[in-house]
Amino acid sequence: MTLESLETPCLLLDRAAMESNARRFLDIAKRHGVTLRPHLKTAKSIEVARRVTDTEAGAPITVSTLAEAEYFAGAGFKDILYAVGLAPNKLPRAVRIMLEYGTGLKLVTDNATLAEAAAAYAEGEGVDLEFLIEIDCGDRRAGLPPDSEELLTVAQVLGTCPRIGLRGVMTHAGQSYGTRDPEEIARITEEERTAVVRAAERLRAAGHAVDTVSLGSTPTVAFAKDLSGVTEVRSGVHVFFDLDQLGRGVCRPEDLALSVLASVIGHNRAAGTVLIDAGGLALSKDLSASTFLPDAGYGYVCDADGKRLEGLSVVGVSQEHGRIAVPDPAWYDRLPVGSLLRVLPNHACFTAAAYPAYQVLEDGEPKAVWTRVNGW
Amino acid sequence: MTLESLETPCLLLDRAAMESNARRFLDIAKRHGVTLRPHLKTAKSIEVARRVTDTEAGAPITVSTLAEAEYFAGAGFKDILYAVGLAPNKLPRAVRIMLEYGTGLKLVTDNATLAEAAAAYAEGEGVDLEFLIEIDCGDRRAGLPPDSEELLTVAQVLGTCPRIGLRGVMTHAGQSYGTRDPEEIARITEEERTAVVRAAERLRAAGHAVDTVSLGSTPTVAFAKDLSGVTEVRSGVHVFFDLDQLGRGVCRPEDLALSVLASVIGHNRAAGTVLIDAGGLALSKDLSASTFLPDAGYGYVCDADGKRLEGLSVVGVSQEHGRIAVPDPAWYDRLPVGSLLRVLPNHACFTAAAYPAYQVLEDGEPKAVWTRVNGW
Repeated sequence: MTLESLETPCLLLDRAAMESNARRFLDIAKRHGVTLRPHLKTAKSIEVARRVTDTEAGAPITVSTLAEAEYFAGAGFKDILYAVGLAPNKLPRAVRIMLEYGTGLKLVTDNATLAEAAAAYAEGEGVDLEFLIEIDCGDRRAGLPPDSEELLTVAQVLGTCPRIGLRGVMTHAGQSYGTRDPEEIARITEEERTAVVRAAERLRAAGHAVDTVSLGSTPTVAFAKDLSGVTEVRSGVHVFFDLDQLGRGVCRPEDLALSVLASVIGHNRAAGTVLIDAGGLALSKDLSASTFLPDAGYGYVCDADGKRLEGLSVVGVSQEHGRIAVPDPAWYDRLPVGSLLRVLPNHACFTAAAYPAYQVLEDGEPKAVWTRVNGW
Repeated sequence: MTLESLETPCLLLDRAAMESNARRFLDIAKRHGVTLRPHLKTAKSIEVARRVTDTEAGAPITVSTLAEAEYFAGAGFKDILYAVGLAPNKLPRAVRIMLEYGTGLKLVTDNATLAEAAAAYAEGEGVDLEFLIEIDCGDRRAGLPPDSEELLTVAQVLGTCPRIGLRGVMTHAGQSYGTRDPEEIARITEEERTAVVRAAERLRAAGHAVDTVSLGSTPTVAFAKDLSGVTEVRSGVHVFFDLDQLGRGVCRPEDLALSVLASVIGHNRAAGTVLIDAGGLALSKDLSASTFLPDAGYGYVCDADGKRLEGLSVVGVSQEHGRIAVPDPAWYDRLPVGSLLRVLPNHACFTAAAYPAYQVLEDGEPKAVWTRVNGW
């Protein structure tokens, strides 16, 4: 198989880069004496999961949808954290996944309403559930403040239901995406650690057994200095990295494992653009990389071998068209219609979500196809 | 079935609104004496296609991927325009679709390189191909200027290959998305019409038979005054509409046929937000509506019955979380955890692309599931 045998657009995954990234983060976790529970919301692939966890199917993983939970449970993963606050209508399916596959599925909430609904459901159905309570460490997305009264209320609702095991606390420092300064990110890791450890201590003081103290985002794990009191870290995009992470200094250009293979389908000389068959669906409309890489557009452009074509990026997209601005007309000869190009994604999680599978490259040649699970 | 029986997030389609939108555009085409060749890049669904075309499976349709072409060909659609400039690596699959299903698949290009590759392929494989030449009417995306020398060159390459039928010309006035003034949009329709008709006349003068003169975007079709010389119009998002089209005045609020059903999963009182389980993947990261509806965010919020909750929109998303800013704390009581909400998408084509199927509503109740085709 060669790249020329693939139909475009498709999603390329450089296996060596991915494995190197995974090792780096497993080493970070090891150095801090914590467990890495990789967030598979980025990869959503069994074949990737087996290569980025420590102990294959026995390894702890994190997911963002019940579709992922079901897919990984079906592949034998036994310790899965569904890290998005549970909606009541997902309880039946969550229980079905646990029972059908014998999977330990940990659920998350930050409120007494859901805790009460879960307790009633568990009692009514005669099933056991495990929960972590989500803590807001400054991200201001989900979670309870570590010093809030509600934290103890939620713990009490969960803790007094004999069918529910309150396992601990988790948090996510999304605010780490506001800076590219390693020292500032390390300070945010400390903010994240302090918040979740404080919440764990309050729960322990109130008589709850807390065995899981979980935090993580790729930047805060990458630059962590001290993880005392933490039992596990979650990061996901580290397995592939992307331009967003590159712009933040969390990875090097050679760590970028994911790219979209596209074909040149036209030249618009009046507009000064080369047109490719990868548009807003193939690349995603995520523009996060532009915060720190203002020229990234919808992605930097590389040749078919993955070498950056300096100065070229996808400057505009419609549904199935991508427009690459070219600084001079010589590019029309360098990139004739039919040329293969690779586009480096801004945000791997969003770009990958459009594809059912990865074309896995070894030494630049497609050697395998690894499937993904999408949707909910 | 009730909405409460659905797992969130999922994609709701109001059948009556869709059918009314489809009738409106079929009537527009009829009034102008042209064929409506709906662009199914928005709906990507056989069940939708059968309800928005004139004559069901015999009806002409437009698609944006070969995956769509294959899916609709398999359902019996015989006249399909693949309206994105062809890449050479797609020729084998395009031919396979034509031969396997006996489908008339019209291909598009704007350059001699692809035309020569297609001619060589058609001769080499002993297969027949049909082409339209793409014209740039001012969109500056794809296509040749109608007065360009290249237009005649491409036509000559296609026209002299006995295996290729040059059927005509097509264009798309993407520039219509730059304004919300109906008179200005009508002026752009005239720009679109003039360009594609001029190209057709030049081809005819050069001895080519031109039976297809095709234009279209939803706004330019909606506000067209004169379509003389045009044989068909292509619009796609008109079957569902979205906030982007609403902001442009192309539809009314009651025409919005698509919404995302989501659950409230938490309240972040410190941040002043209600959290839902529909984030950037469920809603898409498309922000196009904000051009003319600056408060749209990632979508306006409605109650479960589809009634707008004035003042509420999704102000931020991460992968699986959506944040709704609430103007006062009374909303926490109005929207307890577990409440169902609907979010109106910014851009229907992008939001729908995350889902494998529509939950089809009749009188507000889910009555059917219609599948979609995604990917390439």
